[in-house]
Amino acid sequence: MKQEIAIGIDIGGTNVEIGWIDNQGQIVEHHRIKTTEFDTAKELVDMVGQRILEVNSQLEDKKILGIGIGAPNGNYYNGTIEYAPNLNWDEVIPLAKMFEEKTGLPSKLTNDANAAAYAEMLYGDAQGMDDFLVVTLGTGLGSGIVVGGKVVHGYTGFAGELGHIVVSEEDRPCGCGRNACLETYASATGIVRTVHKMQEEKGIEKTPDLTAKQIYLSALEGDEISLKAFEHTSKVLGKSLTDYIALLSPEAIFITGGLAKAHEILIPKINEVVDKHSLKIFKDTCKILPSALIEQNAGMLGAAALITRESGLL
Amino acid sequence: MKQEIAIGIDIGGTNVEIGWIDNQGQIVEHHRIKTTEFDTAKELVDMVGQRILEVNSQLEDKKILGIGIGAPNGNYYNGTIEYAPNLNWDEVIPLAKMFEEKTGLPSKLTNDANAAAYAEMLYGDAQGMDDFLVVTLGTGLGSGIVVGGKVVHGYTGFAGELGHIVVSEEDRPCGCGRNACLETYASATGIVRTVHKMQEEKGIEKTPDLTAKQIYLSALEGDEISLKAFEHTSKVLGKSLTDYIALLSPEAIFITGGLAKAHEILIPKINEVVDKHSLKIFKDTCKILPSALIEQNAGMLGAAALITRESGLL
Repeated sequence: MKQEIAIGIDIGGTNVEIGWIDNQGQIVEHHRIKTTEFDTAKELVDMVGQRILEVNSQLEDKKILGIGIGAPNGNYYNGTIEYAPNLNWDEVIPLAKMFEEKTGLPSKLTNDANAAAYAEMLYGDAQGMDDFLVVTLGTGLGSGIVVGGKVVHGYTGFAGELGHIVVSEEDRPCGCGRNACLETYASATGIVRTVHKMQEEKGIEKTPDLTAKQIYLSALEGDEISLKAFEHTSKVLGKSLTDYIALLSPEAIFITGGLAKAHEILIPKINEVVDKHSLKIFKDTCKILPSALIEQNAGMLGAAALITRESGLL
Repeated sequence: MKQEIAIGIDIGGTNVEIGWIDNQGQIVEHHRIKTTEFDTAKELVDMVGQRILEVNSQLEDKKILGIGIGAPNGNYYNGTIEYAPNLNWDEVIPLAKMFEEKTGLPSKLTNDANAAAYAEMLYGDAQGMDDFLVVTLGTGLGSGIVVGGKVVHGYTGFAGELGHIVVSEEDRPCGCGRNACLETYASATGIVRTVHKMQEEKGIEKTPDLTAKQIYLSALEGDEISLKAFEHTSKVLGKSLTDYIALLSPEAIFITGGLAKAHEILIPKINEVVDKHSLKIFKDTCKILPSALIEQNAGMLGAAALITRESGLL
């Protein structure tokens, strides 16, 4: 019998990760294409689809089951991406169908953070947990909500937009067209904005082309503004997570994504905020943890699970 | 065969409702005791338990299956009430066990708002819905969260504390010991505080012994402060519900409890706020509705369902 393979595609604001995953969760093949290499969804499907067809032609000893896709604003129910601000796609795109047409393979799609939640549940430290949350701190803030052992899609298929709860009255425009969404603070781009704002308030020139990684490295060296920016980010995120705990009482919250590389600074600070603000009945009930999965793999592992789970392999 | 009856007890901040419910959801007998008539949980169990034993002795032609209890801060997993601020019980009380000992009947307990959600799902307009929310606007604000057709209890059993998400930086102490929780605004007591604050700001004497009902009646007559208080309450609640929709994407949100008697004023205003603030993908996806159930019955119907559902009748 041929070895069965599911393809997982993780579409992020920076990279598209494409993985060929066997039924033990091993990555047989891994490709990466920069998100900047295409402007439209059609270009993405053409380029990524072409790559998939090429690789598949070299894997003739395997049986390719299909394609699972994790993408921002992805809708599990109808396989579309809808108005994804971080991809500059202000329309409804039938991405799963487009991949099916391009590759001839059955394709399913979900929110990128839901894919991360699947990965955490199947291969990470959430194994055996019924109620948990995955927060991805990347270009934006995504979240995958698991309740009673299932990823929550909600009535519309769009549940899990923790990044777009509104956290302050401050004037901080969000890519979604609204103001002061959580992801304008708690994300790789959000912490850069926070540092720039602090520099402005101090009358210091704003560091050009600043990245979250630079802020992290500066914080490790004791830079005051960088440390304060992490403090502020943790406070805003910690308060939102405290509210989340009051609503859904998870066993754990996993912090992942680019900014989570700074989890040694972030998580203790978030824990402090959650401890301080939690309702008595929720004190010390929810662990806040870094993901044990390799970040660039988690999205595609979880996306591939859309296919392997359906086929009853997992 | 004897007709089977489940007893449902709804413990509110004002009244304890006790219902004897048959397996069609018909209320065979209904008693009410004021919450002010007892100071401790033991007194409550003695008084309510005694009443149950008396009524049961007159129902010898029926088979009494057990007692379901809906109570603030109730924990489904272990049958306790824990630190219920609105009952002034600052401890962990094994209420289900106490009722079992007093009456000899199997007893189960859940949060009062979860009970309301069961009632809505079994007998109300949420029949057939998989994802919805019930918000009870009484002395406090409770919520019963339904995801994928199941009431969410979470890891601790305490999920659903929408009333205790923190909504502002304003100094407005909450019964839970924290500050500016949603229920300090959006509840029968919350709207009274809002009117008092507005009166204070205008240099008007605070109306003594003001009730939410009076504010509602004044608003109907066009009283400016009362209307503004409803405006403010709807704004605060509407923004929180917008965040809830972003997280869990329900099909409907049901507004119930004492203050919801003013739903003809509240719901259009809440809808306006939700419409204005919703993320594009959630526009017009979630109905905000009054409960079609008779409020004083909903809690005990839902509580009784803890017993009838277990016995496989529903």
